[in-house]
Amino acid sequence: MPRKAQAPPPRYRKHVFVCVHERAADDARGCCAAKGSPALRDHMRQRAKELGLSDVRINRAGCLDACETGPTVVVYPEGVWYRCATKEDADEIVLVHLQDDGRVLRLMLDREEADG
Amino acid sequence: MPRKAQAPPPRYRKHVFVCVHERAADDARGCCAAKGSPALRDHMRQRAKELGLSDVRINRAGCLDACETGPTVVVYPEGVWYRCATKEDADEIVLVHLQDDGRVLRLMLDREEADG
Repeated sequence: MPRKAQAPPPRYRKHVFVCVHERAADDARGCCAAKGSPALRDHMRQRAKELGLSDVRINRAGCLDACETGPTVVVYPEGVWYRCATKEDADEIVLVHLQDDGRVLRLMLDREEADG
Repeated sequence: MPRKAQAPPPRYRKHVFVCVHERAADDARGCCAAKGSPALRDHMRQRAKELGLSDVRINRAGCLDACETGPTVVVYPEGVWYRCATKEDADEIVLVHLQDDGRVLRLMLDREEADG
């Protein structure tokens, strides 16, 4: 019996996870929730809906371990990580990445490694 | 200015999202949380740790919209969806998929489409 099946069709063209993890107020790492990520996720979801992006899903997620640079967002299947701190950031990620499959270079984490 | 950067190196070889969404007890769709998904996620995480899979992350996620067939798990970057209902299911996903990059056919959602 084969251990790998043919790849099933993707359920979502873009599947976004927004960290909404909350840490104690005195935690040195900070947390995405305290930086407004739950509202940013709701905003991103609303924008995607307004644009008719029915093949995109925007989920809440637990700690993505990028607390210091958060609010953190990762877009799969490509695995692009972003810092998304404002509604304008969220709008740009929705338009450029989720709608047009581009990349928002100014918000990308790990970009130095990619360019280097 | 280019809209796409070269793809950054992946932060995780496998990034797993386990739905821990909770619905009201009388919700007709049911929910993953009521079927034990938070404990299954903790178990999966512990097993991955025991196996030394330091390049794997296992996160909680909001509703993955597969409530009826849950507890639901999705593994990125490949986007393979599983029903993970027991600790034995979780163990098999960790060993076969996360460690060995195989597929647990008996637990895969969307498999009919893949085989068809």
